[in-house]
Amino acid sequence: MRDVYLVGAGQSPFGAFPDRSYRDLFAEAYEAACDSVDHGIDTEDVDEAVVGTLGVGGRQLGLSGPAVTEHVGLHNVPCSRVENACAAGGFAVRNGVQAIKSGFADVVVAGGYEVMTDLSDDVTKYWLGVSGETEWERLTGTTFSGVYAQMASAYLNEYEATTEDLSRVAVKNHGNGAKNPKAHLGFECSLEDATSAPTVADPLNLYHCCPTSDGAAVAILASENVVGEYTDERVRIAGVGAASDRVGLAQRDSYTGISASQVAAETAYERAGVSPGDLDFAEVHDCFAIAELVAYEDLGFCEPGSAPELLREGRTDPDGDLPVNTSGGLKSKGHPIGATGTGQVVEAFDQLTGRAGDRQLENPRYGLTHNVGGSGGVSVVHVFEREEVGR
Amino acid sequence: MRDVYLVGAGQSPFGAFPDRSYRDLFAEAYEAACDSVDHGIDTEDVDEAVVGTLGVGGRQLGLSGPAVTEHVGLHNVPCSRVENACAAGGFAVRNGVQAIKSGFADVVVAGGYEVMTDLSDDVTKYWLGVSGETEWERLTGTTFSGVYAQMASAYLNEYEATTEDLSRVAVKNHGNGAKNPKAHLGFECSLEDATSAPTVADPLNLYHCCPTSDGAAVAILASENVVGEYTDERVRIAGVGAASDRVGLAQRDSYTGISASQVAAETAYERAGVSPGDLDFAEVHDCFAIAELVAYEDLGFCEPGSAPELLREGRTDPDGDLPVNTSGGLKSKGHPIGATGTGQVVEAFDQLTGRAGDRQLENPRYGLTHNVGGSGGVSVVHVFEREEVGR
Repeated sequence: MRDVYLVGAGQSPFGAFPDRSYRDLFAEAYEAACDSVDHGIDTEDVDEAVVGTLGVGGRQLGLSGPAVTEHVGLHNVPCSRVENACAAGGFAVRNGVQAIKSGFADVVVAGGYEVMTDLSDDVTKYWLGVSGETEWERLTGTTFSGVYAQMASAYLNEYEATTEDLSRVAVKNHGNGAKNPKAHLGFECSLEDATSAPTVADPLNLYHCCPTSDGAAVAILASENVVGEYTDERVRIAGVGAASDRVGLAQRDSYTGISASQVAAETAYERAGVSPGDLDFAEVHDCFAIAELVAYEDLGFCEPGSAPELLREGRTDPDGDLPVNTSGGLKSKGHPIGATGTGQVVEAFDQLTGRAGDRQLENPRYGLTHNVGGSGGVSVVHVFEREEVGR
Repeated sequence: MRDVYLVGAGQSPFGAFPDRSYRDLFAEAYEAACDSVDHGIDTEDVDEAVVGTLGVGGRQLGLSGPAVTEHVGLHNVPCSRVENACAAGGFAVRNGVQAIKSGFADVVVAGGYEVMTDLSDDVTKYWLGVSGETEWERLTGTTFSGVYAQMASAYLNEYEATTEDLSRVAVKNHGNGAKNPKAHLGFECSLEDATSAPTVADPLNLYHCCPTSDGAAVAILASENVVGEYTDERVRIAGVGAASDRVGLAQRDSYTGISASQVAAETAYERAGVSPGDLDFAEVHDCFAIAELVAYEDLGFCEPGSAPELLREGRTDPDGDLPVNTSGGLKSKGHPIGATGTGQVVEAFDQLTGRAGDRQLENPRYGLTHNVGGSGGVSVVHVFEREEVGR
């Protein structure tokens, strides 16, 4: 099957914008993505659109894909919404890859959006809770903080790990996010800040939880047949993997690993022909600090139980051998549900094309994005490769 | 790109089952689909799943794809939900085709579901209304009955058509649905019944509107590489087309035609290498009687304004030259939003493989399905071909 390239990517700022509409945010991301395409792109060039959103609150709940694509002038192209909770944006990109590889499209707009800060204070319980397992989680009053707290408890119990290790995730990611002008919580925090914060769901404190954000992100994909029309920078989507699992944590085999992520990563590495050691950076799904630790292990960066060591040794710092969440991650950059997965792809694009400003890594070749839905009901992994020009 | 075949399809009954869960209904459809596969199929054979649902009410609203696939034992395969209002089920099948053509999967489960009759009496206003355009339709109190009534008014005004022509849609489709044991409203109605019914939104009366239904439907797709393992009956998905347009009726160019359907049909015909005259039957989206008339024209069965003539002459009756909605259509078979588009594919499968019982057409070769979201914000068309065995 033919190759698919990432020819552009952009996002709105992530943050609290209760007065901005979802359409407005999507349009900003779409424009930023179009502007990032080297040789430019016209709306008429787009063959298909995929939009990821959880789609909650009082706005457009059905046809919530076309509701934003019509706003940017995309008419008469197939448009669909994909919903996979917090992994909607990552699956939108994956669906876009399928649309191109299937021969249905040469150019695809894949994006995501969410507006959450105009909702009630109970957003976590009522609006995010809808993605938790219904009978044994939502109806018993468990929120996602509670579910991930159970994972954290199990992890701390099973391995040589402490709450300070959880706090190190926050320190690293806030350090990165402070260099990202699009970040929601773009400030640094100390280990003291991140350790002494008030408890949210024991053992998780405030600094172990990502914020509720508004925002949108868009990626533009092109087939190998037309990529040359748009750019000379060849960022290939080298491998894609995805999997689902039982929605409820209690129904799954492990509390300290996410099977869907393991399967997704294996598939993506195999298709890309790379191993974790080849990666130059990764954007992983750190909705809660424990999720980043578990991700290191699910994605094969280290053995089970060794994630805290990687962190302590600074190996996932920007100057480490595998920088993780240079964007700030969900923790600092923010987590506007449907936009998050595509937002990770924006960071990959920026890093691989030298657009990452103060966060720029030195000449990276391979990058990975990892986007989880719910507490692991689904997961999707992409591996990107910057090809040498003239290859 | 490689060919995709429909190797199995099945559905739950469509009807009012407020006591049944969405998972239970989906499982019944999945089992029926598996049972319809000639040589049998195992859950382990499935590489990917796509689930269409509008997903309203108090049940699982996020991860609503994996929430049903986990229930039938599908773990560790990529699963995503697609939402395109009433076209979710049709887009689920289309996404499944893309998954196979892209090389990502050989066997895909594509289905849809909806449970609506456990919701309040205001289901039309509050739950279906969420797929209407927000600012100018929903917030002004317009329901889908009202939007389609505007289309009907415009049609009756522009062409030589009467409300009796609208009623003829009901008479034909109820006649067909009376032979379908899975139909929600499986009874016949007379032209007198269908003309004298109480007004819902002038000029549409009760018999010009489909019911609110519960139900699920599942299609099983396989690549040309593996189709022989599952069946000797070759039902090829010969062509697929889809398009989106402005969500709100008032924003579109015409009230008497749906541009998204026209584009979707053109694409599907072109890819299948057929013209409307080659079709032996069609399942079209008759959520309201006017929608079936408009569909005849959008799909190229006749010229604009000539649809009533086709009906009056009985040409879309089961013994006509192009039988339409042999299943009973949305009007009689029922309209469980996310299940509807896949349900149309079930009828196509049954007709092309001689399983349609009392509704069976004589040796059909080409069939079409047409699934619309909202009042035309999106549309998706599939053309199916029964290949001669040993081809």
